[in-house]
Amino acid sequence: MSIIKIGVIGVGNIGSSHVELLHKGQIEGATLTAVCSRNERRMEWIKNYTQGDVKIFRDEETFFNESGIDAVLIATPHYSHPELAKKAFANGMHVLIEKPAGVYTKNVLEMNEAAKASGKVFGIMYNQRANPLYRKLRDLILSGELGEIKRTNLIVTDTYRSQSYYDSSKWRATWKGEGGGVLLNQALHQLDIWQWTTGDMPKRIHAVSSVGKYHDIEVEDDVTAYVEYDNGATGIFITSTGEVPGTNRFEIIGDRGKIVVENEELTFYQLTQSEREFNKTYRGGFGKPEWKKIDIPVKCENANHASIIQNWIDSIRKGSPLLAPGEDGVKALEIANAMYLSSWLKEAVALPIDPDYYFEKLQEKINTSTFEKKNVTNTTLDVKGTH
Amino acid sequence: MSIIKIGVIGVGNIGSSHVELLHKGQIEGATLTAVCSRNERRMEWIKNYTQGDVKIFRDEETFFNESGIDAVLIATPHYSHPELAKKAFANGMHVLIEKPAGVYTKNVLEMNEAAKASGKVFGIMYNQRANPLYRKLRDLILSGELGEIKRTNLIVTDTYRSQSYYDSSKWRATWKGEGGGVLLNQALHQLDIWQWTTGDMPKRIHAVSSVGKYHDIEVEDDVTAYVEYDNGATGIFITSTGEVPGTNRFEIIGDRGKIVVENEELTFYQLTQSEREFNKTYRGGFGKPEWKKIDIPVKCENANHASIIQNWIDSIRKGSPLLAPGEDGVKALEIANAMYLSSWLKEAVALPIDPDYYFEKLQEKINTSTFEKKNVTNTTLDVKGTH
Repeated sequence: MSIIKIGVIGVGNIGSSHVELLHKGQIEGATLTAVCSRNERRMEWIKNYTQGDVKIFRDEETFFNESGIDAVLIATPHYSHPELAKKAFANGMHVLIEKPAGVYTKNVLEMNEAAKASGKVFGIMYNQRANPLYRKLRDLILSGELGEIKRTNLIVTDTYRSQSYYDSSKWRATWKGEGGGVLLNQALHQLDIWQWTTGDMPKRIHAVSSVGKYHDIEVEDDVTAYVEYDNGATGIFITSTGEVPGTNRFEIIGDRGKIVVENEELTFYQLTQSEREFNKTYRGGFGKPEWKKIDIPVKCENANHASIIQNWIDSIRKGSPLLAPGEDGVKALEIANAMYLSSWLKEAVALPIDPDYYFEKLQEKINTSTFEKKNVTNTTLDVKGTH
Repeated sequence: MSIIKIGVIGVGNIGSSHVELLHKGQIEGATLTAVCSRNERRMEWIKNYTQGDVKIFRDEETFFNESGIDAVLIATPHYSHPELAKKAFANGMHVLIEKPAGVYTKNVLEMNEAAKASGKVFGIMYNQRANPLYRKLRDLILSGELGEIKRTNLIVTDTYRSQSYYDSSKWRATWKGEGGGVLLNQALHQLDIWQWTTGDMPKRIHAVSSVGKYHDIEVEDDVTAYVEYDNGATGIFITSTGEVPGTNRFEIIGDRGKIVVENEELTFYQLTQSEREFNKTYRGGFGKPEWKKIDIPVKCENANHASIIQNWIDSIRKGSPLLAPGEDGVKALEIANAMYLSSWLKEAVALPIDPDYYFEKLQEKINTSTFEKKNVTNTTLDVKGTH
């Protein structure tokens, strides 16, 4: 099988770490042959680091037209993902995009259409899907072992950020620069895990998001959301960048028990019979179904970027299934968009939201913004262990 | 010091257990001398059980006027607590009421006025306040060790009830009979612990309560509520009688750390400095305040009815402070009432709610009720370990 020639576009914090990974040869069947960025300092570093093995592009048109790559890894700022992916598909390239898929669903849905039409392999860097912990959780739910879902409680507050993080770039945590705060940046992986492991999207979301509650920023850094599903199940989602040490706890209650994922461990409280069945037949007053506690030993691997890249390359070369198809990127984004919309409108919103209406509301936020950052430091941050 | 002569009015599930406790002499400085109930079967049992040591009353007027008791423990159905307490105060008696203080705040506030005017010792059976686990939690918060509160997440779903529980009495889980479901019956202690340990009442509540979601009843058996406090802190409260094994987890985040109470254990994640201070001064991007995990060994004692009765008797005899002053009963009730109101109106409500308005809405529920229970069994239930 041929070796896939990969280009990376965007070499900020996360793009640089992908360049390192690829250049070190850690992805089987792939080789880094091109990089594109307008960041001169970074490009200088990459030139030295790759010792001339990699073609350097400053201009994206030339990169897409002349680099000769088979596949592109897009690690540019959020807003540009859909447009660049569409260009790549138009040039016959396979695509792996960083999360989020975009900032609003309107152009992400267009990107999905372009991907479909191209027939190319389209992935998204939802690296938590490669985490054995969440793969096991998904198996337990989708296999029916947990029974019909009654409730999902997801608390993701181990996402602390200081003011200095937000001050490291002018575009960070602005409507124009990132299109959102903690939901699109720190908590998005967990929004995906929420819907991916349960196999279900909420049908209705009521969210309260607080803008700059703990930081001098114009986007949200604290969110509480209540959701309802088609089958009557409910759930809550809580995230914040203002709490230490924070919590990362996912509790799913089903008709046949409860699963808790916390502290990188999975515990299954398994009933010996369906609760709904018990409720129908039991006659004794205060009793409840019997259950047993099962600690399921699963390794937790949080930062599996390499696994997702390898899985994407394998899919290109061998046709194996993708863990994180790019088309799935719209799901967590849709949840995040619905949370923003609900918070702006101060009412519950139904899913799917209207992509045009959301786009319009977001433009309002951008166009009416008067926020100015006081202390921009223009620092490159070490992202190890943060994604 | 004189021995306090106690009467018990109401000998259902919980009243009977108080009769046993008192008759066995487990409360120092108190003696059971009278019982009042219209339940003939129960009174027959009490007559045999107490071997004629206790005066039996079928009629509450005679009980209050002629029993010669100093203090009364009121364990009748919810609705009657305020009225009976007022009668007791008018007769110069000390009062301990079972929870809830009542069903709506209007007459509970009147009861509090009557208590104040009487100068008698007025307690409420919030036995979880005697639990060393929650006393320690309260100390850690009110002493300032946790810092200013940012969030309170309380999940109380270890409150399972089967249909046969609801079918055990005609009045159970009806607006007319109990005035509410899981909030007033199973989760009320935790609503009190929520406000008592944090020393703070929410200022705004948005709740969704589901009526008969898991049972054939006319009141709620599943509730999710979002709350906001004066200082900007937020919280969630989740309860249900339809989940097994359920969760009982209280997480409080402050400026100086996080406390988690779960599985009868208290864990304090203590920061080495205030997060707000760290945020102001830190310049390094992804860092966060340092913290240490402290397992605080505290015994969990869930069913401390005897402690509350003893504390009330001691207060009568020695003037020692009450753990659970009767006047506090209105607080958890107000939270519950606000959750009902929010759910009925489908919007957030501010606290304190209007007592007259709530009373009116509750009457509507009662007057428009068309619900009929299909399989009433009239069973006395063994309540050991359920309160």
